[in-house]
Amino acid sequence: MLRFLTAGESHGKALVAILDGCPAHLPLTAQELDRDLFRRQLGYGRGPRMQLEKDRVEILSGVRKGKTIGSPIALLIPNRSTELFEKVVTCPRPGHADLAGALKYYHKDIRNVLERASARETAARVAVGAICRKLLGVFKILIKSRVVEIGGFTQVKERQKAIDQAKKEGETLGGVFEVVVKGIPPGLGSYVQADLRLDGRLAQALMSIPAVKGVEIGLGFGVANLPGSQVHDEIYYQKGKGFSRKTNRAGGIEGGVTNGEPIILRAVVKPIATLRKPLSSVNLLTKKESLAHVERSDVCAVEPAAVVGEAVVAFALARAFLEKFGGDSLEEIKDNYSSYQKRISML
Amino acid sequence: MLRFLTAGESHGKALVAILDGCPAHLPLTAQELDRDLFRRQLGYGRGPRMQLEKDRVEILSGVRKGKTIGSPIALLIPNRSTELFEKVVTCPRPGHADLAGALKYYHKDIRNVLERASARETAARVAVGAICRKLLGVFKILIKSRVVEIGGFTQVKERQKAIDQAKKEGETLGGVFEVVVKGIPPGLGSYVQADLRLDGRLAQALMSIPAVKGVEIGLGFGVANLPGSQVHDEIYYQKGKGFSRKTNRAGGIEGGVTNGEPIILRAVVKPIATLRKPLSSVNLLTKKESLAHVERSDVCAVEPAAVVGEAVVAFALARAFLEKFGGDSLEEIKDNYSSYQKRISML
Amino acid sequence: MLRFLTAGESHGKALVAILDGCPAHLPLTAQELDRDLFRRQLGYGRGPRMQLEKDRVEILSGVRKGKTIGSPIALLIPNRSTELFEKVVTCPRPGHADLAGALKYYHKDIRNVLERASARETAARVAVGAICRKLLGVFKILIKSRVVEIGGFTQVKERQKAIDQAKKEGETLGGVFEVVVKGIPPGLGSYVQADLRLDGRLAQALMSIPAVKGVEIGLGFGVANLPGSQVHDEIYYQKGKGFSRKTNRAGGIEGGVTNGEPIILRAVVKPIATLRKPLSSVNLLTKKESLAHVERSDVCAVEPAAVVGEAVVAFALARAFLEKFGGDSLEEIKDNYSSYQKRISML
Amino acid sequence: MLRFLTAGESHGKALVAILDGCPAHLPLTAQELDRDLFRRQLGYGRGPRMQLEKDRVEILSGVRKGKTIGSPIALLIPNRSTELFEKVVTCPRPGHADLAGALKYYHKDIRNVLERASARETAARVAVGAICRKLLGVFKILIKSRVVEIGGFTQVKERQKAIDQAKKEGETLGGVFEVVVKGIPPGLGSYVQADLRLDGRLAQALMSIPAVKGVEIGLGFGVANLPGSQVHDEIYYQKGKGFSRKTNRAGGIEGGVTNGEPIILRAVVKPIATLRKPLSSVNLLTKKESLAHVERSDVCAVEPAAVVGEAVVAFALARAFLEKFGGDSLEEIKDNYSSYQKRISML
Repeated sequence: MLRFLTAGESHGKALVAILDGCPAHLPLTAQELDRDLFRRQLGYGRGPRMQLEKDRVEILSGVRKGKTIGSPIALLIPNRSTELFEKVVTCPRPGHADLAGALKYYHKDIRNVLERASARETAARVAVGAICRKLLGVFKILIKSRVVEIGGFTQVKERQKAIDQAKKEGETLGGVFEVVVKGIPPGLGSYVQADLRLDGRLAQALMSIPAVKGVEIGLGFGVANLPGSQVHDEIYYQKGKGFSRKTNRAGGIEGGVTNGEPIILRAVVKPIATLRKPLSSVNLLTKKESLAHVERSDVCAVEPAAVVGEAVVAFALARAFLEKFGGDSLEEIKDNYSSYQKRISML
Repeated sequence: MLRFLTAGESHGKALVAILDGCPAHLPLTAQELDRDLFRRQLGYGRGPRMQLEKDRVEILSGVRKGKTIGSPIALLIPNRSTELFEKVVTCPRPGHADLAGALKYYHKDIRNVLERASARETAARVAVGAICRKLLGVFKILIKSRVVEIGGFTQVKERQKAIDQAKKEGETLGGVFEVVVKGIPPGLGSYVQADLRLDGRLAQALMSIPAVKGVEIGLGFGVANLPGSQVHDEIYYQKGKGFSRKTNRAGGIEGGVTNGEPIILRAVVKPIATLRKPLSSVNLLTKKESLAHVERSDVCAVEPAAVVGEAVVAFALARAFLEKFGGDSLEEIKDNYSSYQKRISML
Repeated sequence: MLRFLTAGESHGKALVAILDGCPAHLPLTAQELDRDLFRRQLGYGRGPRMQLEKDRVEILSGVRKGKTIGSPIALLIPNRSTELFEKVVTCPRPGHADLAGALKYYHKDIRNVLERASARETAARVAVGAICRKLLGVFKILIKSRVVEIGGFTQVKERQKAIDQAKKEGETLGGVFEVVVKGIPPGLGSYVQADLRLDGRLAQALMSIPAVKGVEIGLGFGVANLPGSQVHDEIYYQKGKGFSRKTNRAGGIEGGVTNGEPIILRAVVKPIATLRKPLSSVNLLTKKESLAHVERSDVCAVEPAAVVGEAVVAFALARAFLEKFGGDSLEEIKDNYSSYQKRISML
Repeated sequence: MLRFLTAGESHGKALVAILDGCPAHLPLTAQELDRDLFRRQLGYGRGPRMQLEKDRVEILSGVRKGKTIGSPIALLIPNRSTELFEKVVTCPRPGHADLAGALKYYHKDIRNVLERASARETAARVAVGAICRKLLGVFKILIKSRVVEIGGFTQVKERQKAIDQAKKEGETLGGVFEVVVKGIPPGLGSYVQADLRLDGRLAQALMSIPAVKGVEIGLGFGVANLPGSQVHDEIYYQKGKGFSRKTNRAGGIEGGVTNGEPIILRAVVKPIATLRKPLSSVNLLTKKESLAHVERSDVCAVEPAAVVGEAVVAFALARAFLEKFGGDSLEEIKDNYSSYQKRISML
């Protein structure tokens, strides 16, 4: 069973992740993981902090002579900027876990919340996801993302203009990104038990990205306005090619199971909750009205969120893939995968 | 840890569920569960099958002298209509798990897929959810749902007209429902690990309802078009009442944790995939083009989906609630809950 | 992932189990499960209750036309004797969960504890295990058990005499049983993470049988007295046959992983805690000294415990087997299994 | 939910652990963890490697200003000795995971197995356990261990003599250790579902320590020879003190639930599998008979295994403790614990 835990605070010593259950013999280097970490740091509308911290991951275990060996892979991403770690914060920021976390854990210093609730944690998930993406790539499964909308605009030029404008006004912007997965075999996930449905698992993965407030698959919310005949994907068969569809409105998943068509997911990201023009809040100690604490000043984080989206989808799919195909080494999984492909081509 | 499994096919002997981890001393009768089962069977646009089968649940274990005793609760919902169980189906229906399931499990008779992938299974989840709702009710947590849109229409009259029209045309319709949870304390779920975030867990719960293709929280996809200052909920404080908000755009969850405001969730339901005017498909055995198998003929299932939505949300919240407050009997949980309430009122 | 839940009280309506994750196309009848249920009811030293209740399981779901279909298998075992269900018990029995359970769940009527804590629940586990045994049997993996000692005696004749004697004296007896698994492939379980080690998982399975107080693998506690050279199994190789051992002191597991030799497990069962000559206890309501409640009167339950032992081992191994080989249908698993066998024969 | 993963190879860069679910406000320093790491390295009969590597843990996350903050705690234990990491090993050692692991993961270089299967991994578990022990200590729950037998000898002097003798002969020795837990409340674990029984969970924890081949609770295997009247612990009551026992043959657990008496566990440890006088084996590449690879040369590891035993028991109990009492901060858990204590004193 593929599983992971991450650890680490935003201004603590480092982020750490352990990925358990990765099969043996997958070629893997830290540089490959750095590539996705770097992509996560890019994006029009990101502030100065992102520039100073170019993340580099160190693989502490699970890899020997350039290949995984089946044992857990520990990843370390040192934090460059740690000077804020000790600094007390007493004014919770709207739109963050600050207040809810302070109540839950009985923290009087909100730094104890925001250090872990920070989106910085997603760097660890991106590194984990990059391993999963590598694994899926062996089976020609490709995961890509793109930003489809920012601040209501779909054209790149307009999006950038909107970001510039928002920056001037001390505002922030959200948007929508899409993740597309090609080459996925039919039969991942299952309808037999509610928690095995792949659509639910992918929704969980995407909705657990900070700032994501909505997730949809295929036509998504669009299905509300269309009659059944325009929503479902009719089934065809071609000798030699097997079953196929001419449409993919389902986004590659029917009944909680992949149907062999590309998986299409979209998620909406809210505007960054820390505004340069701060929101109204209350000091936790004095209970007096106060402006929310401002710690960083990006304007828009939809592009990095899309990279995180790829990562969490990669993990969810790699997990479902290994559930179905079993196996402890790449060689064994390849055997199993090819047996399955042969078998279903006979159905 | 609250957990459940369900079992049962659509035309098999019965649906079965086991709910494990329900605390002791919750008053519980089968009649209370039947109420939600009945609500699930209602709805404008449901076909004749729903009428003939008025579900009744039998509690087989876990309850003694009208109260839960802490041991697992087994529920049995007999199926009235079982005559189709043996009948072979060879033509997969678009929009269902039929084809994907046949490939996955190597089934040549699609009945082996559709019997379990059927939305009938949700009756078991509704019964489980009704127990969770009862438990949450003890702590004055209330879960309600409403249909907000069908076939693009928001007014009840227009919705019914659209359903009548669709029925005439052999079509089906989808829509959107909303689930609102009031009285939830702050501090459920956590930002400390990706899989603990309550927003992700609720998204998983809702997206795992058959036919749901999108989920959103609070403003949901609406956040894409708004600047940060109009998306986040400023924080206020009133002596005696504690922290409060004037808005609830976040839908009750910030940073993956409940903030004490009502939880607001919406899900979109696709039109029923079995159309009276059947879609094009392929016979699994002959590989010849053929019309998809038609087994039932509802036009619209958004209303029942909303009832299922309440149920899965009730389970997810009851689980998060027990994670935070622990306890094996209602008495113990009440103690813990009231200690927490006192403690956070002091923060 | 293979998993199960059971439910049901000793004198409630029925025992229920749901087994989730069983692959499709395994031939299965209720009669096969009844066979193990019957074996569990046998045994020299069992009292009259066992005779009146000949357990019969009903398969409520997951099987169609004599074969599993991949969906969860629900099992129902009706209770014949339910008249005690309402009867209050106020005096906790030493050696049972009675007192600990009353404190934990805050029960004043100990019936609320003993009904579920009863060893009757193991009937449900035996039925689940019988399915797992059937699945393993397809791969020529055989699970057997035998009683090796009762009341300190190893010879059958002496054991029966000891039981007769104990019966006369109002006493009860315990003993030791052994479970042996043949045909298991190397490579189940893993050393990579503590909770994946198969020895730990088997120990958990056996120790969770009521009355079991100790578990050992291979030489077990015997290793404490022997030097290393007499404890480990030297490795040999024969062309065509592959690696082999001349001894099996490890009991088939090295480093938490099966090594291809038979798995050998032993568990010790304490004497039945309900003695006809009852133990001293305290009335929960009056706090006065009192004799422990007596509800049944078997003398020795080592033989049935051995059957339960087979069942829990079958489940643990089937789970580990499916983890390694994946697959959703028997056909797919057979492909994967045979690829693995071929591959390791090449190492 | 308390959970952890460890990572790291024996001669890799470091061992890593992430402990997730530790409540906020537990005072914690690396020095406290080092103390248990150091105890794990001691013991009569340990070889030179242990001396050169004095383990020091670094806390990378989850602690701020000397206290836990509720977020995951990442621990790093650097390896001093890494020069063997690249060295190929082709001859599997009997008694280790070497051969089974090579087959499972399809490794031709056994170093890929032994680096992770090494008992060095237990250092990470000891560090995790030390945090759990600290947490339990807040509630006056104390965990201790002692070696009760080595090579068949119970007296310290004889044990040391046996070790000296074994060393001379190139032999190794095993033995038995005991873990005792005092101050544990009644009501941890549960009989309601097989996998919740605390005895099973403790057996899993101990049996997953490398080299452990048997586990027993209370009288353990001794119950096989005794009549029921000498095995169960009669129940008494004293005003002001509540229920009590005069004996503790059950070892603190009845029906899978703690009963408030000390928990008593014993585990048997096999002699170290790497003998200076090596065992017979086969070269994996040439298939020729060969002597097993020798990499370290301790004679006896029962003392360190006992320290690991404390750690894994501490984790299992802390997990069960938090399951029952819930809570996210020490303050909240203390409230809940004291409410429970008050409530059960009223029963």
